[in-house]
Amino acid sequence: MAMSTTTERNKILEILKEEQSFYLISHMQPDGDSIGSLLAIGEALRNYGKEVKMFTPNLVPQKYLFLQGAELVSQEVLLDDYSKTVIVLDSSDLERLSYFTDTVTKCKKVINIDHHVTNQNFGTYNLVEVEAAATGEIIYGLLKDLEIPLSKTVAESLYVAIATDTGSFKYENTTPATHRVASSLLEYGLNPGALSQKIFDERSLPFFMILKEALAGLEIYEEGKIALSTLSKDIRERCGATPGDLEGIVNYTRDIEGVELGILFYVEGSSEVKVGFRSKMVDVSELAGRLNGGGHARAAGCRLYEDYETVKQKVLEEAKNILNKPPV
Amino acid sequence: MAMSTTTERNKILEILKEEQSFYLISHMQPDGDSIGSLLAIGEALRNYGKEVKMFTPNLVPQKYLFLQGAELVSQEVLLDDYSKTVIVLDSSDLERLSYFTDTVTKCKKVINIDHHVTNQNFGTYNLVEVEAAATGEIIYGLLKDLEIPLSKTVAESLYVAIATDTGSFKYENTTPATHRVASSLLEYGLNPGALSQKIFDERSLPFFMILKEALAGLEIYEEGKIALSTLSKDIRERCGATPGDLEGIVNYTRDIEGVELGILFYVEGSSEVKVGFRSKMVDVSELAGRLNGGGHARAAGCRLYEDYETVKQKVLEEAKNILNKPPV
Repeated sequence: MAMSTTTERNKILEILKEEQSFYLISHMQPDGDSIGSLLAIGEALRNYGKEVKMFTPNLVPQKYLFLQGAELVSQEVLLDDYSKTVIVLDSSDLERLSYFTDTVTKCKKVINIDHHVTNQNFGTYNLVEVEAAATGEIIYGLLKDLEIPLSKTVAESLYVAIATDTGSFKYENTTPATHRVASSLLEYGLNPGALSQKIFDERSLPFFMILKEALAGLEIYEEGKIALSTLSKDIRERCGATPGDLEGIVNYTRDIEGVELGILFYVEGSSEVKVGFRSKMVDVSELAGRLNGGGHARAAGCRLYEDYETVKQKVLEEAKNILNKPPV
Repeated sequence: MAMSTTTERNKILEILKEEQSFYLISHMQPDGDSIGSLLAIGEALRNYGKEVKMFTPNLVPQKYLFLQGAELVSQEVLLDDYSKTVIVLDSSDLERLSYFTDTVTKCKKVINIDHHVTNQNFGTYNLVEVEAAATGEIIYGLLKDLEIPLSKTVAESLYVAIATDTGSFKYENTTPATHRVASSLLEYGLNPGALSQKIFDERSLPFFMILKEALAGLEIYEEGKIALSTLSKDIRERCGATPGDLEGIVNYTRDIEGVELGILFYVEGSSEVKVGFRSKMVDVSELAGRLNGGGHARAAGCRLYEDYETVKQKVLEEAKNILNKPPV
C-alpha cells in the first residue's frame, strides 16, 4: 500500500514554496476530482505568485468547463523545460498520463499527489493519502499548510473534486474529515444547490434514451435478487450514445428494491460481450474474477468472447452461485 | 417568518431536563427528517432516563424501518395524559398532525421544533430555526446543549434526517453548519455508503417501470429548453405504481442537458390533469401561480380541470412565456 512520510510531505511543501514555476498534470479520461484538483492547485499557486501550466491528456469534460481556469488546461505536450518540477495529480501510475508519460518522466522532479490505494509511488516525492476521499481533500490540506488563502473559485474547484469522488458524500470513502473540509469550503460562499445540479443531476438526452432501453429490457431472476438488462450496439447507435452516456446505467439494475445483484450486458459484436456488475452486499469482484474480469466488491466487470446467449447463461449461472455465498 | 428567542430555547432545555415523561410526534406522510428527528430525540431522551411515547399519523415508510426504534412509533392516539408535554417535530402547523391535531391541542404544553420558514409558532414554546437544513440539525444542537452523549443509533437517525432533507448535501439549504454536524455524526462510526444506499438509491420496481414510460413519452420543445412527458392513469395502474412510486419522476424531465423547464402531466381523468414543474433557473412558482397552482421557485405544480390536450396546450403556452422572462 502506498504511504507517505512526514519528511516527504515537508519536502513537497518546501518545493512549492521555493520554486517559481510548475507543470501540473492529471490523468486521462478526467473526472471531477482530477479536474477540480488540477484547477484548484493551479489557481492557488498563481495567487501565491507562481507560474503554472496545466495539462490533461483528454479534454476537460463539458460539465466541468464552468470551473474557473478550465479554459487554460492544455492537451498539447508543452512541457519543454525539464528542469521544472511537474506535479502529477490523482494518478495511480504514470501510464494514466497517456501520451504525456514520456515527457513527464524526463522532468527533473516529479511530485505525486494521490489518494488511490494502488498508487505506485512513482514520484521523486510522493504524497499519497489513501484515507482521503479525494485528491482534492489532500490539496486542501496542502494549501492550509502553505497558508495560501483560498479564493472562492479555488474553493469551488476543491468542492467539485470532493463532491464528485464521494458521489455527494454518499460513498463509503466519505469520512468526518471529508465533511469538515466541505464545511470550510462552503464558508467561501459556494452554492451547493447550483453546483450539484451542474455536476450530478444533469445528463444528456442520449443517456436518458439508453436508460429507457435498459429499463425496457429488464429481466428479473432468483425471486427478485438478480436484475439484468442488455444493450445492443444497435440500440446504443440509435440513441446516439457516446461511452460517457453509458456511465451509471448499470447502477439502475442494482437500485431496484429487493435486488442484490445488478448485471448489464453490452453486446459489442457477435462474439464479444462486456458485462458490468453492481451489488448491495455480495462480492462482485469475486464473480468477475471467475469470469476473467475484475473490480471492487460492489462494482466490477468482465469481457467475454462468446455469443450473447452463451455469455448470458454462463454469467447467470455464476451469479446464482455467488448469491448463495455468505455476504462480505 | 417564524423565529425563536434565546429565552424560549432555554425554557425548552429546562423542560427537557426537568420533566420525566414526553409525547413525541411528527407530521403526516413522514419523510426522512421527521422520522429521523423523532427517533433521535426519542432514543436520546430514553438514554437520558426519560419516558417517551412516539407517534406519527402515518406508518413509518419501509425504507426507514431499519432505524432503531422505528417499531416503537405508534399510529394510535394514545396521548391520554394531557398534563404531559408533547414535542411536535418538523411540522409547520398543527394540521400537519392529521387526526392527532385535536388531542395534541389538549396537552398542557406543546413544544414546537421545526425549520420551516412557514412555521406558525403554534407551540407553548417554539424552537424554529429556519437556517437549519433539517429539524435533525436542530435536534443535534439541543442534545449538545443538554450534554446528552449521542449513541451510534441516535447519530444514525440524525444523519438520515439531515441527509434526506438536503438530498445528500446537494440542496441549497446545505450550509457549513450542516457539514459540521454531519462530520460529528460520522465520528460515531456510521457507514455513509450503506446508509445512502438504503435511503437514496433504492427504488421499487414499479418506480423504474413508470420511469421507463415517462422517458418513452418524452417530448422536447423550444430548442431543447422544455421537456415534458405524460403518465396516464392506465399506465400507472399497469405498472402497479403507488403515489410513492411517482415521487421524483418529474425531476428526470428537468435533468436533461440543455433543458431549463421540465413538465410532467398526470392524467387523472377525462377532465382532470395534475401537472408537476421543475426548473434549473426559471421561476416555476410563478408559472404554477398563473395556472392556479403554487410551490417553490424550482419545484411547483398545479391541477387543471380540463381535458389533457387543452391542458397541455395551455401549460405549454404559459411555459414558453415564462422562459422568455429573465431568470430569478
